[in-house]
Amino acid sequence: MTDYTPTREDKFSFGLWTVGWEGVDVFGSAVRAPLAPADAVHKLAELGAYGVTFHDNDVFPFDATAAQRADHIAAFRKALDETGLTVPMATTNLFGHPIFKDGGFTANHRDVRRFAIRKVVENIDLAVELGAKVYVCWGGREGAESGGAKDIRVALDRMKEAYDILGQYVLDQGYDLKFAVEPKPNEPRGDILLPTIGHALAFINELEHPELVGLNPEVGHEEMAGVNFAHGIAQALWHGKLFHVDLNGQHGPRFDQDLRFGAGNLRGAFWAVDTLENGGYDGPRHFDFKPPRTEDMEGVWESARGCMRNYLILREKSRAFRADPQVQAALAASKLDELARPTLAEGETLASLREEDWDDARIEALAERGMGFERLDQLAMDHLLGVAG
Amino acid sequence: MTDYTPTREDKFSFGLWTVGWEGVDVFGSAVRAPLAPADAVHKLAELGAYGVTFHDNDVFPFDATAAQRADHIAAFRKALDETGLTVPMATTNLFGHPIFKDGGFTANHRDVRRFAIRKVVENIDLAVELGAKVYVCWGGREGAESGGAKDIRVALDRMKEAYDILGQYVLDQGYDLKFAVEPKPNEPRGDILLPTIGHALAFINELEHPELVGLNPEVGHEEMAGVNFAHGIAQALWHGKLFHVDLNGQHGPRFDQDLRFGAGNLRGAFWAVDTLENGGYDGPRHFDFKPPRTEDMEGVWESARGCMRNYLILREKSRAFRADPQVQAALAASKLDELARPTLAEGETLASLREEDWDDARIEALAERGMGFERLDQLAMDHLLGVAG
Amino acid sequence: MTDYTPTREDKFSFGLWTVGWEGVDVFGSAVRAPLAPADAVHKLAELGAYGVTFHDNDVFPFDATAAQRADHIAAFRKALDETGLTVPMATTNLFGHPIFKDGGFTANHRDVRRFAIRKVVENIDLAVELGAKVYVCWGGREGAESGGAKDIRVALDRMKEAYDILGQYVLDQGYDLKFAVEPKPNEPRGDILLPTIGHALAFINELEHPELVGLNPEVGHEEMAGVNFAHGIAQALWHGKLFHVDLNGQHGPRFDQDLRFGAGNLRGAFWAVDTLENGGYDGPRHFDFKPPRTEDMEGVWESARGCMRNYLILREKSRAFRADPQVQAALAASKLDELARPTLAEGETLASLREEDWDDARIEALAERGMGFERLDQLAMDHLLGVAG
Amino acid sequence: MTDYTPTREDKFSFGLWTVGWEGVDVFGSAVRAPLAPADAVHKLAELGAYGVTFHDNDVFPFDATAAQRADHIAAFRKALDETGLTVPMATTNLFGHPIFKDGGFTANHRDVRRFAIRKVVENIDLAVELGAKVYVCWGGREGAESGGAKDIRVALDRMKEAYDILGQYVLDQGYDLKFAVEPKPNEPRGDILLPTIGHALAFINELEHPELVGLNPEVGHEEMAGVNFAHGIAQALWHGKLFHVDLNGQHGPRFDQDLRFGAGNLRGAFWAVDTLENGGYDGPRHFDFKPPRTEDMEGVWESARGCMRNYLILREKSRAFRADPQVQAALAASKLDELARPTLAEGETLASLREEDWDDARIEALAERGMGFERLDQLAMDHLLGVAG
Repeated sequence: MTDYTPTREDKFSFGLWTVGWEGVDVFGSAVRAPLAPADAVHKLAELGAYGVTFHDNDVFPFDATAAQRADHIAAFRKALDETGLTVPMATTNLFGHPIFKDGGFTANHRDVRRFAIRKVVENIDLAVELGAKVYVCWGGREGAESGGAKDIRVALDRMKEAYDILGQYVLDQGYDLKFAVEPKPNEPRGDILLPTIGHALAFINELEHPELVGLNPEVGHEEMAGVNFAHGIAQALWHGKLFHVDLNGQHGPRFDQDLRFGAGNLRGAFWAVDTLENGGYDGPRHFDFKPPRTEDMEGVWESARGCMRNYLILREKSRAFRADPQVQAALAASKLDELARPTLAEGETLASLREEDWDDARIEALAERGMGFERLDQLAMDHLLGVAG
Repeated sequence: MTDYTPTREDKFSFGLWTVGWEGVDVFGSAVRAPLAPADAVHKLAELGAYGVTFHDNDVFPFDATAAQRADHIAAFRKALDETGLTVPMATTNLFGHPIFKDGGFTANHRDVRRFAIRKVVENIDLAVELGAKVYVCWGGREGAESGGAKDIRVALDRMKEAYDILGQYVLDQGYDLKFAVEPKPNEPRGDILLPTIGHALAFINELEHPELVGLNPEVGHEEMAGVNFAHGIAQALWHGKLFHVDLNGQHGPRFDQDLRFGAGNLRGAFWAVDTLENGGYDGPRHFDFKPPRTEDMEGVWESARGCMRNYLILREKSRAFRADPQVQAALAASKLDELARPTLAEGETLASLREEDWDDARIEALAERGMGFERLDQLAMDHLLGVAG
Repeated sequence: MTDYTPTREDKFSFGLWTVGWEGVDVFGSAVRAPLAPADAVHKLAELGAYGVTFHDNDVFPFDATAAQRADHIAAFRKALDETGLTVPMATTNLFGHPIFKDGGFTANHRDVRRFAIRKVVENIDLAVELGAKVYVCWGGREGAESGGAKDIRVALDRMKEAYDILGQYVLDQGYDLKFAVEPKPNEPRGDILLPTIGHALAFINELEHPELVGLNPEVGHEEMAGVNFAHGIAQALWHGKLFHVDLNGQHGPRFDQDLRFGAGNLRGAFWAVDTLENGGYDGPRHFDFKPPRTEDMEGVWESARGCMRNYLILREKSRAFRADPQVQAALAASKLDELARPTLAEGETLASLREEDWDDARIEALAERGMGFERLDQLAMDHLLGVAG
Repeated sequence: MTDYTPTREDKFSFGLWTVGWEGVDVFGSAVRAPLAPADAVHKLAELGAYGVTFHDNDVFPFDATAAQRADHIAAFRKALDETGLTVPMATTNLFGHPIFKDGGFTANHRDVRRFAIRKVVENIDLAVELGAKVYVCWGGREGAESGGAKDIRVALDRMKEAYDILGQYVLDQGYDLKFAVEPKPNEPRGDILLPTIGHALAFINELEHPELVGLNPEVGHEEMAGVNFAHGIAQALWHGKLFHVDLNGQHGPRFDQDLRFGAGNLRGAFWAVDTLENGGYDGPRHFDFKPPRTEDMEGVWESARGCMRNYLILREKSRAFRADPQVQAALAASKLDELARPTLAEGETLASLREEDWDDARIEALAERGMGFERLDQLAMDHLLGVAG
């Protein structure tokens, strides 16, 4: 049996806020004590992660003085130095403090928007100092519960303005940093702006510097909208925009569960790994999950371990699936090779296509063929369940 | 009490397949007799519609000979002439015949894709002849039930190829016709390509002629993904891409209900109308619904009448809402005007913003403010329910 | 225009935890200061409510000493006395404290279950003292995130044991108090026991004293499962088990939104009111909502006011709908009267039914008839929108 | 590697309508030719099934004459005799013909209800002749698209009347036959009566002969409501009411996908098998799925084979999971054994419980404990993925 112990080459990273989640939810108070960032770093390094990511206020409190902020950062940086963990990504908390109750970049109050942009810029400086190459923006409070509360087109103007300001800042500073928008359909707002991968991809095209901005899709967020996550990241890859990824688990449209990766939609997780591994993605495999409130710290680390373990298991299975001659034959039988061929061949024109003869027999033959997808999918299932061969 | 009788100025249009739906579903057979297109045209004209739309095979059968096709078209055209009804939009049936069981533009079988493109081009010629300005593409069978069946990136290449071929054709012919992609998350396929407004908007940016292609969002399709339809069309308008719209009703994530407009999410319908009326959309108000199987033809026409009536009622309410001084005061109290002001004023820079003083009191004041959204939303509710004032 | 100001005869009640919600959610901290129960009572009385309801720890903290508890209760009672507000219902907080992270009645730890039962019993004594006639049990933490964590059949044994103990206690004390189970499908647990009205109704039948236990269905909880709330309470009424009701708003399967009543599914709210008003329910109209985090206290009271206002508006519309001769004709045309007639008439038998002649013409005639539901529903829509007549 | 070839001892059964589905859906016509029942029987026998189930109109057409009916039945029976396949269950088609457009047992038209009951009784006689022990009632058209169309309480009266008539008939005839209600939340009706396992369980308690009636839950139907199928059948078992089961696959709230068993929610399928195997269920493992339209008959049989194969794989994994000493230790660490112990021990009373001392330290200790669920669930995941040990 393969040993599924992660190494740094696997590029696993975790948000400080994941293993550090104390368990406060709408219905209950904290179940776990605060976890010092330095302790998280040491433990994650021990478990095999290569990176750690953070919101500004995961490292220092919202109301920290400059001196306090520096002390907190120093302690975090010391742990990074001691462990060799990297900070591949950072992000801003624009949702926890009551000032952001109506959003950050698209808050109706102009002063809140100004405060939000400042807060992001401050943390971009820190992110770059700590070596981050990707800066995630999750606009969890950018949205509305009711139709009159937000003029969406105007809000998108403000969203664009914020990204344009931040993009120009990064260019002006000569930072080697890209932005990654994290879409989500709802929760904590009734409806959130840029609710899916698609909406965020479309938005990026309107920016002054679209090349600076890509996506950070999260498994659970797409599944909350009932759309296929693997399809979503495949489209993001197709646009050249998969800058980062948030892996976790979810059971379809309901509250944001943030289960460990693999839990929830397991077949979906297999295809997500298959898409990442075969789609040219080489960024961090970042886990954005919440160890359930039922767990103590031992359970938290079990949960973190499980995220990485499940990724490694699924990666191995994806490789075996793709290498299996039976699968290759089944893919050919299902005409995946034909999908890869242009519909009009070199030199062909629409005119020549229109002149083709399409008699009833030809149509009938195509109508009657079977696609062999059930066999192909059962082969994938066999690999997933470990009974192929 | 206002009379909500539609006139042609209201630009209401219906698909032939809506009032003509015979009621076949997965679990049962036809409940209504076929409706001749000419009869549909006459009745819709009488009810107050200004336009009618069609799939090729709504007008003539899939296997019609050239002569049969011409006869069917002649009968349809005669009815149009007699009534003065326009054909603002047309589309292709790439989903009914078994040849399309794995899709049209993205079928794995190259021959199916070729057949699909031919079929669209043939019908584009007819659409233009009949005066259509918008050509809708709903790729209902473009998708998959299982992960191995479709390489999504490759399928998007094929989808782009198809739109590029069609776009070039329209340019070559000098047609005054634009395309409108109709997104849908699932049904009849397990997962459909370009599942939401956002995904389709993003896709368009990769085309050779993105200016030729926009969207035809459908209320129910977005609500099947649990996303806000009014927000979606607002984003499409923001991108300049709302080329057409499909109005109907749906109760959230479940099978595609295609209820008459107004049924389903009524508050959502109010905001959809408000967004269309105030967002600069001036295209047809097109109803794509299915009169329930419980209805006979009298019920079908009641249902069609209801679509238009509900639009007119909601339009009137949206106007009254926007004109109400109480509402205007509430919008100002909720700071909608501030949302419309740039976050950085003329001449301001990020540097000057960063120099601003943000003491605790200023933050606290913003954190404590109320947004007044509940009052604003109750005013909208009062208008919707007809009890404002 | 009718004045929709509530009076005590309307029997509106609110949970202390609704207007008192400080706004803590998974992603953010409190946005409003604590609201003293006495202040809530005074304000609710002023707004027109007749009753207020409470969890034990809405009135006094979890760790209150006996003396502190008494002081808190005294202050609450004083406000009740001053205002004349009643306490029609009370309930226990078995979800907020970390001890309940795996549930109360069905926690795997036996000691937790014991603590939970004690906590309920203590508060039942208080509830009865304060005049409550209904005791609600919402088992929000009774459930699991993963399949091995809970043996459901065994958990149901424990759930039954708890209700049997509590039922016996109430009988032994001679209390005039009934229990109302509040179902919910998920959140905060991944899956919750007794997830819908149906599951709870079925469960009750296995209790020692089923007559003591009924339901407290909540609009949003049923809509989170995509089931029809009005149908659900109609079934509960049919079983004689609608002991209480929680009114609020929700947008289908997603996180628990707890919007004010009327917001969310407005047509659903109309039919819910219609069912309550015509179905023999005479208990409190209880609002269990959360004023959005965007609101300050003024907004909180607007939101509370809106709950009652919307109920009164919808009640008036339901009455007008039922009284409208056009509606009565439409109901008859849709054969609602025939539904009320037994399928076998007095004296008829299955044997006689089998002897009936069913020729093709008779079948055909029934198959072709229209049900007139679209017309009937448009009449309801017209009433709802205030344009009937 | 185990061979997952089914035998008759595995008790796998299939509906004629599953492998015989021609692929008609709302958007497209048949993709496969009709499959003669006798051919289905022979092929299913060859694949390893032990039983086949049927709707009346799977065997003979709706409008068959008595002679035609007899011929069709004879051909079907001949195939049963030749293969030794049993008919463990039968059911009635009360949804396909337009006469049932508003339902069968709860159609507003009394004549339709009468016709429906006759149709069921006729087929019960045949079912018993063919040896069926369970008679399923799926009321797919019993429901409504709009609130006024159905008085739910009155409809439940009619539903009860139908079951009471049928129950009495079975008693009068001395048939050894039980009924199994199959719940579904929606599709093809907007909302269906008895939408979940729970609602159906509750309903049964109101019947004249509740002992005659149990449930036939379907995986996909419960998952369409976002509720946990394994929990649902566990509750049905707890009530002694799991009379039959429909196994298939589904991706959460969306249209009824009827995927082969294992596809869709795979982790859910594991827990469903675990619950069936360990919960005392000994009836047929019945597959109610639809081979996707993309498949020809070869694909249909692959899909059928996959249903059985996946069940056998999951059964083996469930057994290994339960037998694994690590799992047993983890279950104990998660206190599953304590859940099985009564909360009040023999001889204990509520009074003695209330006298127990609960100091802060005891509460604190319980609040801080971890439940170990993540470790337990990862062990299950390892077994499912075939990497345990």
